Amino acid sequence: MYEYTHGGDIYDENGLVKENMTDFSASINPLGMPEGAVSAAKRALENSNVYPDSDCRLLKAKLAEFESADKSNIFCMAGASDILFRLCYAVKPKKALVAAPSFSDYERAGRAAGAEIIYYTRKKENNFDIEKDIAQLIFSALPDIVFICNPNNPTGNLTDMGLLEEMASACEAAGSVLLVDECFLDFAENSRACSAKALIESRKNVIVLKAFTKIFAMPGLRLGYAICGDTALISRMRFCGPDWAVSNVAGAAGAAALEYAGEYIKNTREYVKKERGYISGELRRAGMTVYPAHANFIFFYCPRQIDLYGELKKRGIVIRDCANFAGLGPGYYRCAVLTREKNRLFVNALKEV
Amino acid sequence: MYEYTHGGDIYDENGLVKENMTDFSASINPLGMPEGAVSAAKRALENSNVYPDSDCRLLKAKLAEFESADKSNIFCMAGASDILFRLCYAVKPKKALVAAPSFSDYERAGRAAGAEIIYYTRKKENNFDIEKDIAQLIFSALPDIVFICNPNNPTGNLTDMGLLEEMASACEAAGSVLLVDECFLDFAENSRACSAKALIESRKNVIVLKAFTKIFAMPGLRLGYAICGDTALISRMRFCGPDWAVSNVAGAAGAAALEYAGEYIKNTREYVKKERGYISGELRRAGMTVYPAHANFIFFYCPRQIDLYGELKKRGIVIRDCANFAGLGPGYYRCAVLTREKNRLFVNALKEV
Repeated sequence: MYEYTHGGDIYDENGLVKENMTDFSASINPLGMPEGAVSAAKRALENSNVYPDSDCRLLKAKLAEFESADKSNIFCMAGASDILFRLCYAVKPKKALVAAPSFSDYERAGRAAGAEIIYYTRKKENNFDIEKDIAQLIFSALPDIVFICNPNNPTGNLTDMGLLEEMASACEAAGSVLLVDECFLDFAENSRACSAKALIESRKNVIVLKAFTKIFAMPGLRLGYAICGDTALISRMRFCGPDWAVSNVAGAAGAAALEYAGEYIKNTREYVKKERGYISGELRRAGMTVYPAHANFIFFYCPRQIDLYGELKKRGIVIRDCANFAGLGPGYYRCAVLTREKNRLFVNALKEV
Repeated sequence: MYEYTHGGDIYDENGLVKENMTDFSASINPLGMPEGAVSAAKRALENSNVYPDSDCRLLKAKLAEFESADKSNIFCMAGASDILFRLCYAVKPKKALVAAPSFSDYERAGRAAGAEIIYYTRKKENNFDIEKDIAQLIFSALPDIVFICNPNNPTGNLTDMGLLEEMASACEAAGSVLLVDECFLDFAENSRACSAKALIESRKNVIVLKAFTKIFAMPGLRLGYAICGDTALISRMRFCGPDWAVSNVAGAAGAAALEYAGEYIKNTREYVKKERGYISGELRRAGMTVYPAHANFIFFYCPRQIDLYGELKKRGIVIRDCANFAGLGPGYYRCAVLTREKNRLFVNALKEV
C-alpha cells in the first residue's frame, strides 16, 4: 500500500543517520539555515510548554511583507505536503490533474482524498516543458484541481507567466483550482516574473504553495505556507486538519529567517548558480544529458546502461533515482547542488563510475 | 465556518503572548518539559537542514519500551489531533459517536471526513460517567467510529476496564473502530489498570491515542502517537497525510523525555495530586460543585449566576469556560492544576469574585 518514496531518507533501520554517506537526494539550500533562525528557534524551544499560536499571526505578518501579499490570504502549515493534503481534503476532488513527471505528493494527496489522477505528459523531446495543449486537457477532462510545480521537481524547468495565465483561465472556466507549487522558485534568478502570486488577486481559483524547507534549509522543522485569494478555501483548509499544525519552534524560526531573506536569498542564488555550473559541466563531461536547471538541483539522463544510483551509492553518494516518477523511466536522475566540498565528492565519484 | 475554540490561546492579535495573564485554560504538566528533553531538542535543532526520519524509528523503539507495545503497533504524528484527523480520513466514517461532553476535535475530525456526529450523553446526575447503555446505542446506531476520552476532557472522570471491554466488544460486533484517548491517563494514579492498551492484542478495532503534549509539557512541539493492533489501519493512516509529520526537534525531545519518564511521571502525580487537592478544597469553599478529578485539571460547576470566566479574566486568570461543549451549558468550567505559585493566584482571584 505504501509505495511512494522520497529523497532524503538518510536513516538506518534504528533511525540513526547513516555514516559515510553524502546525501544529494534531498535538495536543500547548501548555505544552511540562517543563523538568526537557529537562535530564534532555540529561544522558542524554552517556551514549548505553551501551545503555539494556531493562527500563526506573527509569522503571517512577516510573510505578508516578504511576499507582498495580504495577511488574510496566507495560510501556514507544517510543510508544503501538509498544505497539499489539506487542500485536497478541502476541495474533495473527483479528478486531479498532474503535469508528470512531478512531485509525488500531488498524487498521494489527491488519492488520499479520493481523486482519480489524470496525467498531462511533459514530453522528453520538449525538455519536459509544459505546452499549450494542457489547456485542452483541462477543458476536456474537467479536473477539480490541477497541480503545477514551478520550477518543476524533478525536471528543473520553469513554466512562463503567459502559460501560467492561460492555465489559470482554463482552470477558472473549467471550475478547477490551480495549485502552483513554487517551493523552488526563490532559487531561480527571475523568480518574481515567474510567480503565480501575480494572479492571486484576479483569480480566486489560484493557490500558490511555498515552504521554508528548501530555500531556508529547514526540512527538519516542517514549515510551509499557501497564498490564495479565496479566503473561504483557506477557512475550509483550516477546518480540514488539526489546529496548531505549526510548532512554536518552526514558527519562530520562520519569522526570524524572513528578517534575513533579502541578503540570504541573493547569496544563495549566486552560490547555487556557480556550483550548478560546476556540477553540470562535469555531468556533461561524463556523457550525461543535462536538462536546463533553475533550482538547486540538476536533472539529467545517463545514456549508459548502468545502475548509476547503485554505483554512486557504493562510493558514498546518494542521488535520487527518478525511474519511479510517473512519466519517467530508467536512466533519469536528480542530484542536489550542495557545498563545493560535497559537490567535489560527487564529481570524484562520478569520474570513477 | 470555523466555530471551535480551544484552551491555550494566549496570544494577542499580533501573535505575541498576552502579558499579566495566567493561563489555566490549557492543562499542561506544571513540572514543565523534562530538562533532558529540552537539551536533546536543542541538539536536534542544529540538524534541521535534513529531513526527519519519516518512520520515527528511534522514537518508536523508545515508545515500544515505555508502553510495553510492539514497534509495529505504534504510529507517531504531530500531536493527538493530527492522529484524529488521519484516523478519520483513513476510516472515512459515515457516522461517528462521541460520548459528550468531550474534546471537540473528535467532532471536528469526524465532520472533516464527512461523518454525521451522534452523541451519547454523559449524564450530569451520574457525574458525567459513561454507563452501560452506551453499548445499546452502539448496536442501534452502528457508528463507524466511537470516541472515548479517558480520563474525559473536560469532566475528568475515568471509565473503568470492564466498561472499556464491553464497548470494545460492542464496537467489534458493530464493525466500529473504538478510539480511546488516553492523553491524560498518565496523570491518573492507577493508569495501567485503566488503559485500553490491554485490549490491543485481542481487539484489532481498538486504537489508543496518546501525546507528549500534556504529560511531558510540550504542546509547542507537536508530538502524539497511537497504539493499535491493526497494522493495515496504521498503513492507511500513514497514507492519508504527509510524510515527515514529526519534526526532528519533536522526535528528539520525545525520545529523550522517555528516558526520564519513570521518575518524572511519579513526581508529576504526587505534585498534581497535592495541588489538585488544594484547588478543589478552595473551589468547594467558594461554593462550587467539584467533580471527581483524575487528571491535571478540575471540572466544576458554579451555581451562582455570574460570569465566572469574565470575572477571573479581569483578575488576570484565564480558565476554560465549558459552556460551548456539546452536552454542557453555562456554569461549567475547567481549570488546570499548575504550580503552587500560580494556583495561589487562581485561589486569590476566586476569593475576590
